Amino acid sequence: MEGKEISQAVIGRLPRYFRYLGELRDEGVERISSQDLSGLMQVTASQIRQDFNNFGGFGQQGYGYNVDYLYKEIGKILGLDQHHHLIIIGAGNLGQALANYMNFEKRGFLMKGIFDVNPQLFGRKVRNLTVEPMEMVEQRIREREIDIAVLTIPKGSAVEIADKLVSYGVKAIWNFAHVDLDLPEGVQVENVHLSDSLMKLSYMISCYENQRG
Amino acid sequence: MEGKEISQAVIGRLPRYFRYLGELRDEGVERISSQDLSGLMQVTASQIRQDFNNFGGFGQQGYGYNVDYLYKEIGKILGLDQHHHLIIIGAGNLGQALANYMNFEKRGFLMKGIFDVNPQLFGRKVRNLTVEPMEMVEQRIREREIDIAVLTIPKGSAVEIADKLVSYGVKAIWNFAHVDLDLPEGVQVENVHLSDSLMKLSYMISCYENQRG
Repeated sequence: MEGKEISQAVIGRLPRYFRYLGELRDEGVERISSQDLSGLMQVTASQIRQDFNNFGGFGQQGYGYNVDYLYKEIGKILGLDQHHHLIIIGAGNLGQALANYMNFEKRGFLMKGIFDVNPQLFGRKVRNLTVEPMEMVEQRIREREIDIAVLTIPKGSAVEIADKLVSYGVKAIWNFAHVDLDLPEGVQVENVHLSDSLMKLSYMISCYENQRG
Repeated sequence: MEGKEISQAVIGRLPRYFRYLGELRDEGVERISSQDLSGLMQVTASQIRQDFNNFGGFGQQGYGYNVDYLYKEIGKILGLDQHHHLIIIGAGNLGQALANYMNFEKRGFLMKGIFDVNPQLFGRKVRNLTVEPMEMVEQRIREREIDIAVLTIPKGSAVEIADKLVSYGVKAIWNFAHVDLDLPEGVQVENVHLSDSLMKLSYMISCYENQRG
C-alpha cells in the first residue's frame, strides 16, 4: 500500500467483496469477470475496477479475476491473515450473543475473555469462556495478548473504561456503547450504534411515505 | 421535504445530531451555536450548517439553535414522532439482546413479538414477550400492525423469510443476517453486518501497523 490513502468508502466495501468472493469460492467458481461480479453485487463494474485499482488491480481484465487469489488478497488487506485476540466487556445479552457467534472465529477473531461488574454473572459459562470480574481485565489483556476489546456496556461507563483498556494495551475498540469515544491516535475504533441504525430505518420509512403522499 | 433528494451521508449523520441534542437537552442547555455543536461533535460548523440547510436551516445563525426545537425537528425528520411496531425473527442470543434493549422503546420502537423455528424456545419469556413459532408470524403481523421486522437468523434462510415477511405486509427490515436482501421497491432495508464491521476494524489495525513499519 505504501502510504497511499484509501478512502473510507472503499474500505467500507472491502468486507462485502470478501464475503461475495468467499461464497463464489465455496461454490467452486474459479474465475469471474468484473461484469459478472457487478451483476451479483449490484455495484457497477467500473466501481469494482476502481476499487480494486486502489490495491494494484488484482488481475487482467480480459480473463476476469481469479476468485481464490482475489479472496485471499482482499483477506490480507483486511488483516485476516493474522489472528486477533478479543475480550468482551459486558456479559449482558449482547455480550453473550457476540461470544456465541461462531463466524468470527472462522475469520481469525478469537474470543479470549468476557467480563462484567455484576457478581451474579461471575463464573457463568458463555460458550468456552467464563465471566470474570472487571478487576481481572488488565491481567488478562497482558497475558492473553488482547488487541481488540468489544464494549457492550452502558454509555455512562464506556468512556472511562475505554480509556483504561487503552492504557492496558488494546489497539482497537469495537464499540457498541451508544457514545462516541475520543481515544489517542493509533487506537482504532469501529462503532456499532444500533439505535442510530434503527433511526435511519425509521427515516427511510417516513421519507417513502411522505413521497407517496 | 417536498421531494428534495437528501444524500445518504446526511441521513447517516442525523441520528448522531439527534443523540447529541438529546443529551444537551437533558443537561438543560437551551441554545447552542453551530460552533459549539461543532466542537462537541467534532464535525466542522460549516458541515453542520450545510446538513441543516437540507431541512430549511432550523434557526438564525447569530442566536444559535434552540436545542429543544432542533431536537424535536430532527426527531420528526427521523420519523420518531410516530410509533413503530417491531417483531424479531430469531430468538437466539442476539434476538433476545435486542428484545431486552430498553432504549428502543424510548424512541418509539415497540417490540411486539419474537419468533423462532426451535420448539425448545417456544413459550420462553423475553422481557414482556413470549417466543412463538414461525407459523404465527403472518397473523401477528396483521393483527399487531407490524411495520418493521428484525432479522436475527442465519443467512441460509434469511432471503426466503424476508420475502415472506414483505408479502405479509412489513414495510422495513432491520437485517442482521449476513446476506444482502433484494426486496421490492418501497420496502426499506437497513443492514447491520457485524462481521463486516469487525473486518473493517481489522483493516484499520493492520493499516496502522503497516504505516508504522
